[in-house]
Amino acid sequence: MNPDARDPRGLERLFRPRSVAVVGASATPGKLGHVLLRNLIEGGFEGPLYPINRKEPEVLGLRAYPSLLDVEGDIDLIVVAVPAGAVLQVIDEAAAKGVGAAIVVSGGFREAGNAEGERQLVARARAAGIRLVGPNCQGLLYTPSRLNATWPVTRGVGPIAVVSQSGTVAAAVAGWAASDGIGVSAALALGNKTDVNEGEAIDFLASDGRTKAIAVYSEGLGDGAAFMDYLRRATAKVHVVLLRGGRTPVGHAAAQTHTKSLAGSYEVFASLAEAAGAVVVGSLEELYDATKALATLPRPAGNRVCIVTSSGGAGVLATDAGYEAGLALARLDEAAMADLRSRLPSYCSVRNPMDLTGDATAELYEVVLRRTASDPGVDAFLVIFGDPIAGAADMVRRMRAETAKPIAVAFLGGGEVEGRELGEFAAAGLPVYPSPERAMRALGYLRRAAGT
Amino acid sequence: MNPDARDPRGLERLFRPRSVAVVGASATPGKLGHVLLRNLIEGGFEGPLYPINRKEPEVLGLRAYPSLLDVEGDIDLIVVAVPAGAVLQVIDEAAAKGVGAAIVVSGGFREAGNAEGERQLVARARAAGIRLVGPNCQGLLYTPSRLNATWPVTRGVGPIAVVSQSGTVAAAVAGWAASDGIGVSAALALGNKTDVNEGEAIDFLASDGRTKAIAVYSEGLGDGAAFMDYLRRATAKVHVVLLRGGRTPVGHAAAQTHTKSLAGSYEVFASLAEAAGAVVVGSLEELYDATKALATLPRPAGNRVCIVTSSGGAGVLATDAGYEAGLALARLDEAAMADLRSRLPSYCSVRNPMDLTGDATAELYEVVLRRTASDPGVDAFLVIFGDPIAGAADMVRRMRAETAKPIAVAFLGGGEVEGRELGEFAAAGLPVYPSPERAMRALGYLRRAAGT
Repeated sequence: MNPDARDPRGLERLFRPRSVAVVGASATPGKLGHVLLRNLIEGGFEGPLYPINRKEPEVLGLRAYPSLLDVEGDIDLIVVAVPAGAVLQVIDEAAAKGVGAAIVVSGGFREAGNAEGERQLVARARAAGIRLVGPNCQGLLYTPSRLNATWPVTRGVGPIAVVSQSGTVAAAVAGWAASDGIGVSAALALGNKTDVNEGEAIDFLASDGRTKAIAVYSEGLGDGAAFMDYLRRATAKVHVVLLRGGRTPVGHAAAQTHTKSLAGSYEVFASLAEAAGAVVVGSLEELYDATKALATLPRPAGNRVCIVTSSGGAGVLATDAGYEAGLALARLDEAAMADLRSRLPSYCSVRNPMDLTGDATAELYEVVLRRTASDPGVDAFLVIFGDPIAGAADMVRRMRAETAKPIAVAFLGGGEVEGRELGEFAAAGLPVYPSPERAMRALGYLRRAAGT
Repeated sequence: MNPDARDPRGLERLFRPRSVAVVGASATPGKLGHVLLRNLIEGGFEGPLYPINRKEPEVLGLRAYPSLLDVEGDIDLIVVAVPAGAVLQVIDEAAAKGVGAAIVVSGGFREAGNAEGERQLVARARAAGIRLVGPNCQGLLYTPSRLNATWPVTRGVGPIAVVSQSGTVAAAVAGWAASDGIGVSAALALGNKTDVNEGEAIDFLASDGRTKAIAVYSEGLGDGAAFMDYLRRATAKVHVVLLRGGRTPVGHAAAQTHTKSLAGSYEVFASLAEAAGAVVVGSLEELYDATKALATLPRPAGNRVCIVTSSGGAGVLATDAGYEAGLALARLDEAAMADLRSRLPSYCSVRNPMDLTGDATAELYEVVLRRTASDPGVDAFLVIFGDPIAGAADMVRRMRAETAKPIAVAFLGGGEVEGRELGEFAAAGLPVYPSPERAMRALGYLRRAAGT
């Protein structure tokens, strides 16, 4: 049992290990035991890394050991990628070695009909006080520790965490966050989640000082009441967005064959989770879009949005999406509009949506945003760049420094200029959405989050 | 009036002009008259290009003319980017010159309160037999003619056409199609659509021999019955996907201030359009996703989908999305499954979804697809690559040559390998979606299209 009062659940040695062993480390490219060790090295883990391989004296340039018991130093975390039949012995050796946590990547347990093997695995780990992630999981990325015990390698440190039964969902969210220049704190894939579960994971991440919003993908929660308690605690500190796989009858059946999770009524789950402060979404892209917004944008005081666009059509589409998301078009201050009518070119449409037309420049957007930023009738901005508008990212960066109101951005139809500007937005860590509807819905997620 | 019986509406000189004049061509970078001429040059238009500029003898290296009447040769198409007050005189000169079609990019007409100016513009063009696109529009890209009379420059020739009141919607669809390696035949932005409208445009494109699916964005149809007639004719030859801006009360109001379109009941419009064979969608990304699927994938004979995935979680999400889209999980042939169980690694889950797990290789996918391609219980495939799976694009290319059933592809969570593979998919013009739900919905659009 873990005796540390500051870390009663022993998750510290999982997320911030001082040393890591890869059991089943392989010199053969393509094997998981190779990929995992290589990614830990490429990810820049700074403590000792111990490849465990019965035959090889060296793997990927590191001294290898026949078993955990042959390692001289202490081992906080083991990452296990040996066949299912060999995992129990590894856990026994880990127990003898005083290992704190094990990520069991290996499949071949409950999901493959081997419930008894899984039961034994869990019992032995628990008896030894070893916290267990998996089995049948894709591991853990924790960027504050430079711990890349998963695949693929994801670069970029940021405020988004993802906790997921599915490794692909975790990797997709982490990959999108990296491409967007926003980055992640954690990507944790729980697999069969026999021990460490969503509740404990979000509890740890909500307090790590790095994470601002957590995306959770789950196919069913074992102890729903305990999860809701964790969720309430977490949403007092950070935002949590939830996606439940198996919402529909056939999806539910598919989830049961996948990780054998017990899924209760989706409607009950969703309403309880929303009551506990989470934002519940219905697709993988929404999971990412919402988490991105909540991790990077301030929360609006109300639901009144001012749309500033170079495209009337995109403004119309955003208006439709806003209506469906429970947002309203702000009624703009008459004096500000009169002032803008005198300062903007005559072809601009000074109302809401504010249509600067295809002749718009970043400077025109800035004139409008600066003049309306303090309008008490406006809670949030949706800025749509629907043309090749150079300087867009710089302008948004300046305006974000001048207003506490959220500015959601969509960029589309901008050709090569758009490509360059998206690079600038990413370099500055500013969120951008590829369509007017997704950007507007981002403001909707901000409104739905706890505390607004 | 156009006397050609093969082109009774005179659209030939719009889409396939032998010569183009840019009225208001400017040597000043950033001005629309500069951008339009430069894009026509960069787009590789092969006929004579005539810059019209009252002062300059040369613009962008081309001899310029003070007016249309000073050009010696015939002019099929003019692109007009002068202030609204100067447009009428341009049309009069075009009439005297025998011009066939005019794209009036200039704003400052009905959308700016100048209904009388617009009325006069239309009357004079009609009297002269000049077909009119716009005013207040973003022009036309028609790749079979290498005609890039719009912005930004879009490269890539392909089977998708987009006809849109909004220039940004047209440019976004064209840009996404180019990035995906699929490409467009046409991107036509209608603006105030005083003359050439959605109906005539889809009628022309449906018969051009280049276009397989047309995306239409409209904020309201003047003569709805005439449009539905055009739509029925078009969907007998190609697929048409429709997005109506202003579906909601506030969106409707925004659309009216934008292009002053008269929008009837959305529900009536949507049901009439579906009855006429179109697929009606509710967002810009859906407009593109559906058009992409319909332009590149064969139509399935039924709604029974076989999911092959490396990610159980992504398979669950796809199953949920399929249920919501009216698709069913195929019941796979028992003999084929028994055969696959003997040939696949034991950790693979041989059912539907077929979960090859994170160890999956392109070769494993190919074994499964080849064995199930002829299963009479399967109408379509959803292939999800949820890991760094090299060779995915090559495998899909081979399988597409072997089966007439549609294969929708999602790729996510694949890190650098995914980036390389997406390049391979694009180079081969194979459609890929970024999430399991969007790929599954793509199969749903195929089912909803006329004739399935």
